[in-house]
Amino acid sequence: MRRIVGLFIFCIAMIACSEKPKSDIPTSNETPALNDSTNKIVVLLYEGFTMLDVIGPTQSLGLLENVEIITVAKEKGLITSDNGLKLNASHSLDEITSAYILVIPGGLEGTIKASKDTSITNWIKRIDKSTAYTTSVCTGAWILSSTGLMEGKNMATHWYGKEILESKGAIFSPDRYVFDGKYATSAGVSAGIDLGLALVGKISGKEYAEAVQLGLQYDPKPPYNSGTPETADTAITSMMREMYDYAIQNIR
Amino acid sequence: MRRIVGLFIFCIAMIACSEKPKSDIPTSNETPALNDSTNKIVVLLYEGFTMLDVIGPTQSLGLLENVEIITVAKEKGLITSDNGLKLNASHSLDEITSAYILVIPGGLEGTIKASKDTSITNWIKRIDKSTAYTTSVCTGAWILSSTGLMEGKNMATHWYGKEILESKGAIFSPDRYVFDGKYATSAGVSAGIDLGLALVGKISGKEYAEAVQLGLQYDPKPPYNSGTPETADTAITSMMREMYDYAIQNIR
Repeated sequence: MRRIVGLFIFCIAMIACSEKPKSDIPTSNETPALNDSTNKIVVLLYEGFTMLDVIGPTQSLGLLENVEIITVAKEKGLITSDNGLKLNASHSLDEITSAYILVIPGGLEGTIKASKDTSITNWIKRIDKSTAYTTSVCTGAWILSSTGLMEGKNMATHWYGKEILESKGAIFSPDRYVFDGKYATSAGVSAGIDLGLALVGKISGKEYAEAVQLGLQYDPKPPYNSGTPETADTAITSMMREMYDYAIQNIR
Repeated sequence: MRRIVGLFIFCIAMIACSEKPKSDIPTSNETPALNDSTNKIVVLLYEGFTMLDVIGPTQSLGLLENVEIITVAKEKGLITSDNGLKLNASHSLDEITSAYILVIPGGLEGTIKASKDTSITNWIKRIDKSTAYTTSVCTGAWILSSTGLMEGKNMATHWYGKEILESKGAIFSPDRYVFDGKYATSAGVSAGIDLGLALVGKISGKEYAEAVQLGLQYDPKPPYNSGTPETADTAITSMMREMYDYAIQNIR
């Protein structure tokens, strides 16, 4: 895989240096440049995390130049996601002290528990001092906002997560993803894919991100039109909301 | 997680039984019903598989009633995906002899190798005899078509994969996903999300799938418009194609 990433970077560099007219690449002056040495994309894992929250952004971010994706949990080893699939946490929290990008995925019961676990929230505060971007996907925003770092800052989260997010001092944004300084947060689950591509564009430019998008053939065509409460059947939305309420009632 | 899946199923059943006017649920007579006992969603893993090819469909399929996601590889243990993240294969090939749904993910070099590995293609042929659906995502179609099962059948695959697919006797479909009998295949990487939701709809009805879509907040908003060769910059498409050609030239 390292070989294909190297090829990818070489190809995009060739395109960027070609003589065709330049398009409006949104270079981002405030983004700290990628280092020549390895840049760590650090993903926090915990029991019950949502797998797509992790894979959505990292499938894109893993194609940045000189990056390594590192998975971290309270204890290293296999961590079970919300659909039963297990991802390996290569490091424990105390082994990782910095990150270029920190990714905090969401979930439900496990996410509430993680947001109350000071060993996790204190670790996030430490890592955040070193990051170019600190990010969350879906209800990962509950954990990130529990650190106190997001007081008065704009954040996106799952449509169900608005109230809990606001109770932690952040400002809920209904956008698909939102940047507030170096804090980049997305709406529910699948929104992490959009956030990942937007981050690639911020860091390495529009054409780089477009190449990544083409590689992922990200030309979505949902077979139904039920991705938000605004478009879904109201009975389905109500039931889902009640289900989530019930699931977390004793741990909230 | 099992608790939340149970709740989910209960909620959707309540919606289905409520007195509001029924919508046009596309029940699928040809789909074998889910069993009362566990129905296995079996995912084939191999070194270099693309992680989103697995997670895209399974994030939806894992919310079907009475299902368990089982990961299988030639040897059980940690299998490294194309971006370096490791997923655990809970079973070896010889331990799994049937599936309700078989999912075959794509990749690049590793996928070519897997398509030439008769221990894998023969296993797929054995499992296929028991499946309600045999599916592939992205270049997973190269592996599935290498079994001989897809001779003359319609298949989707990554935009780059057309020629190799046709060399194996299948008919390339440019659609986001395509069903040919029980064979359900998708275009590149992210298309597995659309395929997963379509399968949920086929198996458990439109309203069930809509609830799953709302849970995933699948209302995609790609920040760029470069998801297919038709919309991408032609220079980017050419470079990507050359890069893929180069990567597999010695193993094709």
